[in-house]
Amino acid sequence: MSAAARPAVVLLSGGLDSATTLAQARDDGYSCYALSFDYGQRHKFELQAAAAVADHLGAVEHRVATIDLRAFGGSALTGDIDVPKQNEGAAGETSQLERPASHSDIPVTYVPARNTIFLSFALGFAEVLDATDIFIGVNAVDYSGYPDCRPAFVGAFEKMANLATRIGVEHAANNQPAIRIHAPLIHMTKAEIIQRGLALGVNFGLTHSCYDPDPSGRPCNRCDSCTLRAAGFHQAGLDDPAMASV
Amino acid sequence: MSAAARPAVVLLSGGLDSATTLAQARDDGYSCYALSFDYGQRHKFELQAAAAVADHLGAVEHRVATIDLRAFGGSALTGDIDVPKQNEGAAGETSQLERPASHSDIPVTYVPARNTIFLSFALGFAEVLDATDIFIGVNAVDYSGYPDCRPAFVGAFEKMANLATRIGVEHAANNQPAIRIHAPLIHMTKAEIIQRGLALGVNFGLTHSCYDPDPSGRPCNRCDSCTLRAAGFHQAGLDDPAMASV
Repeated sequence: MSAAARPAVVLLSGGLDSATTLAQARDDGYSCYALSFDYGQRHKFELQAAAAVADHLGAVEHRVATIDLRAFGGSALTGDIDVPKQNEGAAGETSQLERPASHSDIPVTYVPARNTIFLSFALGFAEVLDATDIFIGVNAVDYSGYPDCRPAFVGAFEKMANLATRIGVEHAANNQPAIRIHAPLIHMTKAEIIQRGLALGVNFGLTHSCYDPDPSGRPCNRCDSCTLRAAGFHQAGLDDPAMASV
Repeated sequence: MSAAARPAVVLLSGGLDSATTLAQARDDGYSCYALSFDYGQRHKFELQAAAAVADHLGAVEHRVATIDLRAFGGSALTGDIDVPKQNEGAAGETSQLERPASHSDIPVTYVPARNTIFLSFALGFAEVLDATDIFIGVNAVDYSGYPDCRPAFVGAFEKMANLATRIGVEHAANNQPAIRIHAPLIHMTKAEIIQRGLALGVNFGLTHSCYDPDPSGRPCNRCDSCTLRAAGFHQAGLDDPAMASV
């Protein structure tokens, strides 16, 4: 890592998408400040995975900000609703039915405004670091139907960020670089993300994807996130190294 | 409060601007859910003031979300830098000098991305409540020079919010009301805000504005926020009821 590298904030969940994003940011020449959140999620193992991934991929720093998303509830990931599973009977379906019919296209694992909140914190951290670059591992292909994973959202957040901050306003006045929200995976399939990550040297054995692991951290292999991960490795013609250690 | 009133989330700091905003939202016919933040601010007395104001103005609920802004530092309000005071000698000037020269127009009491973070949480809360209306008491006149108090910022946040959320996306698809960020004070002077608040029945004796009160909660009367408040009451030709109890 060169001392002259420009700083970037990289949102890091401990899953394979954000690990690949961190590797991409490093490969693009940034000095990476990884940021994770303890937000009352069921899957706290992801924070241990995030620390391991940050270390493995040479992040300059890894910060974990504690935030109070549980105060509002409204998501299966923060414990108010059951995480739906593949091949599950009435129990899983009942949890879906807790949402009004018009909401049925967006899964109960959606956390209200989560990426907006995460990017807002990343923006504050970037401003303190005098950084204009923020990386987030969203993708709009195998993305579970979350509205805050789409290119239109990322673009709108970037515009807002440049109006919201001292660094955005002053850089615009001085013809310096604007704040950029990088979403390098946004148009990739899960299989392409896995291939990109491997090409960049990511050890996916350190990553953690399950929304609802057992107390020892073992993935359920049935939630949306486990299902997408397994399909991605299958499609890439690869074995998931995280499964070898289970 | 009628049972049929539409819900709104109102950001409430305990200061006079947000108290007036809450009164305005109630007067506009909303059923108000007040939201405050414990963000490691020096001026925690504002949280007690916020609770008193929420009660006084008939908020349906008052939630305090704990968030970790101190993790990043970078502001006088979160304790990293001295709060600058009027009529102060070298000490106050030194604290300003900690910022590069290009930053000198924006005061050290600016908290990086604060309103973006606050509005993001309000957005999550609104989504859980199935509310499309969020009120924030920013104003661009007597506003201390913060970039995230300007109309352009509020408009950009509103656009982003409608792309970020389930409620925004589904309402757009069904021709239902979009998410609106209401900033009813944005073009008012401090004196006008005080007059509006009084007309709406706000007891400003319950509000708290000082950035750096003493341990008993007594305002310093010298920080930007105290100075703006005093000038506002003076300009409105009124006495500040909060000063009577000091």
